[in-house]
Amino acid sequence: MSRKIRYGMVGGGRGAFIGAVHRIAANIDGQIELVCGAFSSDPEKSKASGADLFLEPSRCYGSFEEMIFAEKALPADKRMDFIAIVTPNFMHFAPAKLALENGFHVLSDKPATFNLAEAKELSTIVQKTGLLYGLTHNYTGYPLVKQAREMVHAGLLGKIRKVVVEYPQGWLATRLEESGQKQAAWRTDPARSGAAGCVGDIGTHAENLAEYITGLKIQELAADLTAFVEGRQLDDDANVLLRFEGGAKGVLHCSQISVGEENNLNIRVYGETGGLEWHQKEPNTLLLKWQDKPMEVLRTANGYLGAAAAANSRTPAAHPEGYLEAFANIYRNFANHIRCRLSGAEPDALTLDYPKIEDGVRGMAFIDAVVSSSKHNSAWTKV
Amino acid sequence: MSRKIRYGMVGGGRGAFIGAVHRIAANIDGQIELVCGAFSSDPEKSKASGADLFLEPSRCYGSFEEMIFAEKALPADKRMDFIAIVTPNFMHFAPAKLALENGFHVLSDKPATFNLAEAKELSTIVQKTGLLYGLTHNYTGYPLVKQAREMVHAGLLGKIRKVVVEYPQGWLATRLEESGQKQAAWRTDPARSGAAGCVGDIGTHAENLAEYITGLKIQELAADLTAFVEGRQLDDDANVLLRFEGGAKGVLHCSQISVGEENNLNIRVYGETGGLEWHQKEPNTLLLKWQDKPMEVLRTANGYLGAAAAANSRTPAAHPEGYLEAFANIYRNFANHIRCRLSGAEPDALTLDYPKIEDGVRGMAFIDAVVSSSKHNSAWTKV
Amino acid sequence: MSRKIRYGMVGGGRGAFIGAVHRIAANIDGQIELVCGAFSSDPEKSKASGADLFLEPSRCYGSFEEMIFAEKALPADKRMDFIAIVTPNFMHFAPAKLALENGFHVLSDKPATFNLAEAKELSTIVQKTGLLYGLTHNYTGYPLVKQAREMVHAGLLGKIRKVVVEYPQGWLATRLEESGQKQAAWRTDPARSGAAGCVGDIGTHAENLAEYITGLKIQELAADLTAFVEGRQLDDDANVLLRFEGGAKGVLHCSQISVGEENNLNIRVYGETGGLEWHQKEPNTLLLKWQDKPMEVLRTANGYLGAAAAANSRTPAAHPEGYLEAFANIYRNFANHIRCRLSGAEPDALTLDYPKIEDGVRGMAFIDAVVSSSKHNSAWTKV
Amino acid sequence: MSRKIRYGMVGGGRGAFIGAVHRIAANIDGQIELVCGAFSSDPEKSKASGADLFLEPSRCYGSFEEMIFAEKALPADKRMDFIAIVTPNFMHFAPAKLALENGFHVLSDKPATFNLAEAKELSTIVQKTGLLYGLTHNYTGYPLVKQAREMVHAGLLGKIRKVVVEYPQGWLATRLEESGQKQAAWRTDPARSGAAGCVGDIGTHAENLAEYITGLKIQELAADLTAFVEGRQLDDDANVLLRFEGGAKGVLHCSQISVGEENNLNIRVYGETGGLEWHQKEPNTLLLKWQDKPMEVLRTANGYLGAAAAANSRTPAAHPEGYLEAFANIYRNFANHIRCRLSGAEPDALTLDYPKIEDGVRGMAFIDAVVSSSKHNSAWTKV
Repeated sequence: MSRKIRYGMVGGGRGAFIGAVHRIAANIDGQIELVCGAFSSDPEKSKASGADLFLEPSRCYGSFEEMIFAEKALPADKRMDFIAIVTPNFMHFAPAKLALENGFHVLSDKPATFNLAEAKELSTIVQKTGLLYGLTHNYTGYPLVKQAREMVHAGLLGKIRKVVVEYPQGWLATRLEESGQKQAAWRTDPARSGAAGCVGDIGTHAENLAEYITGLKIQELAADLTAFVEGRQLDDDANVLLRFEGGAKGVLHCSQISVGEENNLNIRVYGETGGLEWHQKEPNTLLLKWQDKPMEVLRTANGYLGAAAAANSRTPAAHPEGYLEAFANIYRNFANHIRCRLSGAEPDALTLDYPKIEDGVRGMAFIDAVVSSSKHNSAWTKV
Repeated sequence: MSRKIRYGMVGGGRGAFIGAVHRIAANIDGQIELVCGAFSSDPEKSKASGADLFLEPSRCYGSFEEMIFAEKALPADKRMDFIAIVTPNFMHFAPAKLALENGFHVLSDKPATFNLAEAKELSTIVQKTGLLYGLTHNYTGYPLVKQAREMVHAGLLGKIRKVVVEYPQGWLATRLEESGQKQAAWRTDPARSGAAGCVGDIGTHAENLAEYITGLKIQELAADLTAFVEGRQLDDDANVLLRFEGGAKGVLHCSQISVGEENNLNIRVYGETGGLEWHQKEPNTLLLKWQDKPMEVLRTANGYLGAAAAANSRTPAAHPEGYLEAFANIYRNFANHIRCRLSGAEPDALTLDYPKIEDGVRGMAFIDAVVSSSKHNSAWTKV
Repeated sequence: MSRKIRYGMVGGGRGAFIGAVHRIAANIDGQIELVCGAFSSDPEKSKASGADLFLEPSRCYGSFEEMIFAEKALPADKRMDFIAIVTPNFMHFAPAKLALENGFHVLSDKPATFNLAEAKELSTIVQKTGLLYGLTHNYTGYPLVKQAREMVHAGLLGKIRKVVVEYPQGWLATRLEESGQKQAAWRTDPARSGAAGCVGDIGTHAENLAEYITGLKIQELAADLTAFVEGRQLDDDANVLLRFEGGAKGVLHCSQISVGEENNLNIRVYGETGGLEWHQKEPNTLLLKWQDKPMEVLRTANGYLGAAAAANSRTPAAHPEGYLEAFANIYRNFANHIRCRLSGAEPDALTLDYPKIEDGVRGMAFIDAVVSSSKHNSAWTKV
Repeated sequence: MSRKIRYGMVGGGRGAFIGAVHRIAANIDGQIELVCGAFSSDPEKSKASGADLFLEPSRCYGSFEEMIFAEKALPADKRMDFIAIVTPNFMHFAPAKLALENGFHVLSDKPATFNLAEAKELSTIVQKTGLLYGLTHNYTGYPLVKQAREMVHAGLLGKIRKVVVEYPQGWLATRLEESGQKQAAWRTDPARSGAAGCVGDIGTHAENLAEYITGLKIQELAADLTAFVEGRQLDDDANVLLRFEGGAKGVLHCSQISVGEENNLNIRVYGETGGLEWHQKEPNTLLLKWQDKPMEVLRTANGYLGAAAAANSRTPAAHPEGYLEAFANIYRNFANHIRCRLSGAEPDALTLDYPKIEDGVRGMAFIDAVVSSSKHNSAWTKV
């Protein structure tokens, strides 16, 4: 008999930011249930966080290790199906590894790991265990991003020549990390964030978006990283030239010092016969550009959209969807994949449409290449 | 001890549209739980719909009467707290009345009832029972609509002079109701929709939005209704002149034959010293206009917004929110009000910020006035 | 042999506003030459104004009467061909009449006259003299307005059902006329502006635009005029319901107290199969809306536009054009018509595409109807 | 006594494109007069072109040499003041040099010359003769570009950190030059266009715009040029990393194969405390972005703009201006400078605000550096 898919959360206690986003994403469709959590390394705080969420106190754990072993010991009809990891970057690998090795699927916040070596090891573990691993590169969850990808893959724009992908933010234009702001603090700290700051935090979203839509891999890149804010150890701005497999060229730039920019991920892709443009800040609009006819404005949830956009939209024609629904699409597709495992059904392409460990490895390789290129005065560097 | 608020749904079986929207809205925050439903008058269909939602078969009822009496008989720690009504207009009053009379709160889709007389009766019942009644005029759930209201009420625009509120759609530009499309069929049928078509379906949203933001009541109106599509019995287009209490003037027009318009509810309000503009299709932007300085562009989830916008936003700074989150705000505030009832706490203004029976009566009076004015060749008619 | 078309200006001396706009419009294409002027009723001021424009002192006249008679006495190869009238409304009729009666064509600022009676008399004079009369309803000079008209007339949108035309401004939100601002002073003065304020000044542009694009006449209207600013004698805001010949309905509203609105003339037209939208503030964009396919964005000076748009555009593909070029299109077409008269050629439809005395009469009749309807509490009134 | 400034045109005969733009720009204000031209190397064609413009046949010359010597021989009150050069790039230097050496000021289309050596030589000639030299980098003529510059220079954005400047076009996405299209033919031909294609044609506009607004020089750059269209000899796409003096970083990309892009020059500049954004396709809007308050939308011709914007705008508050007016601002300021020379007055800063030979040399140096960097696999190269 059908049932909700069950998960436990690692991180995301009171006051955390991305944990709440994950929980909403899991809630939306009523298909996934939070059953336990290791919300904090402080057992009291973990219990208090769990109480806010109406969890049984016995399933609010003091560590991910405790959670994984305790849940493993529960009967199959009660035990969690997967863990959701919502900790800072340096804490992604360990719970993912342990969960997989103990029979639990994993849905992790990005980037997959702290560095490329960990990502490769994790990839091996995923392969070996045969379990599912998903990564919340949430921006590819938007219906019109999926529409863009479907159209590019169908050849509607012709052979791709040029890609411009941008991710400007402004929130780190001052030394916010000194003010006690938690999000700023760990993101600018090499020990918790990794080798890159802005590039790891948001540049990887841009990279993932570009490769997702075009289906082309970035082959080499030339990067110029800067830490504009005095005293900051990690980059807060990056300008990168791109060369894709097959000859397309491009530009990727991301920034956390672009004052007044909120969260303005956007992309333009040009092929031999058409172009497209999408902006996360108005995510329900996709622009299609042509040589000899007017630009077309596609909008979420209209009948003229393709299968992928339709499958990832919840509202009736032309009601705006947002960030949370896009995020929820990853959760839903991931949960649907688990359902297939439970029932023995073969997942279809729409179900499989969520970021996986390969995307995670790719993201870490991208960070590696960007940092290395910048150290060598923007020399072209293979990804 | 804290627990989720529990509800049962009336209507919203397989294939229905607005029922799914209500369920997502209830799910989002993980604070409300669907525990039962009378999803269809066909008990088999109701059970099948409930099974999709992982409900116990015993709580999937064949009628709202059955549901109300059965749930009433359950122990208090299991019984639903409120019903959500998501049936066509002519089926709003009866379940609302019965639920209230049997001790259940009610959250109803709009318009409140089939006609003004029912709305007034319902109002009396709500008063008498002292139970909570909420109405999903969901567009007032958007953070920036709440911001607009807060700013107008704080006098930021000066005394209000002019209001332009529009709700153009195009989906009924052809005789869709003949094609078997269920949504079109009941909306264009006087026996199920009421005295007005377009005006009842979407004009009331425009009316509610204008009164919500300005805090001013429409005093009288002059309306010109048209049924453009041949053979259609109810209006599919309305142009209305407005006079507000206090001297403000305005225009309200709504349409379901404005080809190519999706769901373009929008409003402009002008006071003596400033103006504002908001569009549902890009709901995360609020424009503020001034006499001698540049227009300002407010965006959802920024620090410069007021308390109401902040309280009704779930995402970190500057991530787009959508229709479902706005809808969910009504559910959340309503559920929070129930929580206050359960705990004996006094609800604050933010909790009380959801449409109530007064809004429902007002909407029905608006429909009445519009239809009457139009019958008298657009004579000015009191609301 | 070919030569420039010559004109004299009535009004438009130093410090005037619309006179300078007319002169630029005349200059742009190098086909029209200012040869004389009665720029002011003060001969000294007129001479000084003419000197700024490099005119011969002998052709800077102290009154339009002097100019008309003196120019008439000049040899044909020197004499002006037409006069341009750029005075306040109450001074339009007299110079137009005298010029026509003395053999000169007339290009007048709008509205054509001070009241409907004058307009009708002027129409008779134009007919009798057989001379050319043009009216600078300049907004119909934009390439994309012409494109809109061409597409509507070709039936691309199907039978027209609904028109929404708006002209909000905010510059008269305070009692600017008391501050010595010249433009505000005469526009709010019944003795110089006529029976209407806002409606005469900008409402007529909206009316003209709607009739130009749709090719439909407004048959009757119901208007609600207001003077919001205390002490103001003429309307500064108008809301009007429209009924067009053939059954289309619509709304026209205009305002000079909509704080923060610059000069936001805009129109939406919906037919049975398509819709269009155009905004003067971004005049190089025309939106086309369809039932089952994406909105299209047409832009000035692209190859996919029709003959009228192409003929009224001066820039290479996709360079923005502005207000002055639109204004200049009226001058150019009018001058081209004069050229046809000079050479005996038959003017084609593109040459004849400028507003004429019929538009002037229609505008005055519109003002009359609006004022009358409003006086009768918005009763439907024939135009 | 005051008079119009007189000029002769080199190039721009029938069928040419940019010549007509220059003539309109010169016409607009009625302050500049076309008195002669060498419109074509074919004397018959030159005469015919001049006749279209109502010129005396005797002043329609068969070559620029003939024009310069003949005009020099005319009396001072008839002789042209300056020449306007509107020929393809390889024909800029010779007429500029000859004109300057014979006492005529020069206003030239961009880029200044065919290569850097010529530009440097021309600079020396300008210096030696003391005559005026202007360059039509017309995009800096827009009022809001001037506003942007004024605000940056006043320190409103704080120290500049990042610049993103883009110029995508799509018109050369196919091998248009093979179709007989004249504009495409010379622009893609190294013998007539110079060492760069897209970079010379439009990249220099982007470079000029960035340096104009920021007041910062590009110190070094790393460029990746591509000729995407098979068989094309010159670049049709360029991606460039920028490092400015003082530490700002940036990205410049331009393209003529970005299908569906019209003429989309745009720029974003971010300083320590604010950011700005301007798009040529909607040139009457300037966006200002702040850290903790709403974005502001500045519009052409409003009272809150500064002196430079006000001085370069011709329309009343809030009427859209276009490409031609921006172009005309260069002509007007240049002509005003000549007027100062004639009268002995000292030009003010607003008069001197037009691109000069230094901008021309800088543009040629930019082209040189881009081409050289790209040849060395995007090595950082000094400008």
